[in-house]
Amino acid sequence: MPRIVNHDERRRQICDVLLDVVAESGMTGATIRAVAERSGWSTGVIGHYFHGRQDLLLGGLRRAAEILAEHNTRVLTTLDGLQALEQILEGSVPLDGRRLALSRIFFFFFVEAMTDEELRREVETYLVGWRKSVARALRRAQENGDIPANIDRREIAKDLVGLVDGLSMHALLDEDVMARLREQSPVRFWIRRLTTRSDNVVPLQPSGETRATG
Amino acid sequence: MPRIVNHDERRRQICDVLLDVVAESGMTGATIRAVAERSGWSTGVIGHYFHGRQDLLLGGLRRAAEILAEHNTRVLTTLDGLQALEQILEGSVPLDGRRLALSRIFFFFFVEAMTDEELRREVETYLVGWRKSVARALRRAQENGDIPANIDRREIAKDLVGLVDGLSMHALLDEDVMARLREQSPVRFWIRRLTTRSDNVVPLQPSGETRATG
Repeated sequence: MPRIVNHDERRRQICDVLLDVVAESGMTGATIRAVAERSGWSTGVIGHYFHGRQDLLLGGLRRAAEILAEHNTRVLTTLDGLQALEQILEGSVPLDGRRLALSRIFFFFFVEAMTDEELRREVETYLVGWRKSVARALRRAQENGDIPANIDRREIAKDLVGLVDGLSMHALLDEDVMARLREQSPVRFWIRRLTTRSDNVVPLQPSGETRATG
Repeated sequence: MPRIVNHDERRRQICDVLLDVVAESGMTGATIRAVAERSGWSTGVIGHYFHGRQDLLLGGLRRAAEILAEHNTRVLTTLDGLQALEQILEGSVPLDGRRLALSRIFFFFFVEAMTDEELRREVETYLVGWRKSVARALRRAQENGDIPANIDRREIAKDLVGLVDGLSMHALLDEDVMARLREQSPVRFWIRRLTTRSDNVVPLQPSGETRATG
C-alpha cells in the first residue's frame, strides 16, 4: 500500500528545512537543491509542492510568519504584561539560528514588497498582526498598572516593532549592533522608559509627580 | 574648443537624477534609460561613468550616503543638542521625495549587503558614520544637561538609528506607519523619554497638566 502523505504537513516540513538552510547559508544558499540535499527528499518531490526557487522562498516567508504568530499566541496565553511584551518583541531578533532565518527571510521580502504590490499587501498583514500582539501585551501591562493608561498603545506598538526590526536589520550588517542585542536588551531598556513605576525608571516625567508633591 | 567636463561633478549629477527617478518610480523604475530620458544625457554618456545598471545604483547608494553625511555635518554646525539629534535622526525618514529615495536605495542595498561581504563592509561604514553623528549630538545634549550624563550615548545611538530605520522601512510597506511618521514625531517622543528636564517632556501624558489644574 502506498504511504498516505499529509500534503500540508509535508509542505511545512519542506519550509522548515528551508529555514534551517537560510539560517546556515543565508538567502543565497537557499536553493531547491540545498533543501533536497538536507532533507533527503528529491528535487522532484520538492518541485511537486513549490514551483521554482522563488515560490519555495515565499513558502519560507509564510512559514516564518506562521512561526511568529504561533509564538505570539503562545506568549500571550502563558505570560503577562511586560514579560509578554518583551517576548513578542524579541520573537524575530536574530539571536539564534531560527530567528536569524526569520530575520533574513523577512528583510529579503520586505525589500521585494517595496516593488510588488501584491506582496506588499501580504507583508503588511504580517506587520499588522505583529503590532496587534504587541498592543495586546501593552494593554495587559496597562491593566496591571505597569504602563500608564493614557499611552496610545497602537502608536507605541508601531514604534516598538520598528525599533526591534531596525536593530535586527542593522545587526545583520554590523557586528557591533549584534553585540548590543546579545549583551543587553535594548527592548527592555525602552519599555522601561514607558513604565510608571519609579523603581523601573529614571525620572523621565518628573513634571506630574513634582507638581503634585511640590 | 571642446567643453571641459568636470567628471566628478557629472557623476554626481547623474546620481542625483537617479535619486529623483528612485523617488518617483521606485527601484524598479531606476534604469539607465530612465536616467537618460530625465537628464537629457544619452545612455552612452551615462555608460561612460557607470558600467551597467547595478553600478549606477551603487553610485546612487554612495551619493545617498554622501548627502546624509553632508546633512549631518551641516546640522552639527548649525544646531545644538536635542534639535541636532532630531534632525540627524530624521535625515532619511521618507517624508519627502529626496528622503524617500534615500530610504529606498539604502534598504535595497542593506538586503544585498546581507549576501555580499564587500558591500556589507561598505554599508557598515555608513551605519557607523550615522551613529557617530548621533552620538555627537547626544554628547552635546548631555553637556547641555538635556540628557542624563550617565547614559551610554554610543549604545543609545544604536537604538535610535535602529528605531528610525525600522520605522522608515515599515512606512514603505504600511501606510499606517507612514501616517504616524507624518502626523507625529516618534523620534521626538522617544528622545524625550531620555531627557531629564521636565520642560522638555511633552505631556504625552496629560496627567501632569490634569493633576496640576484639577
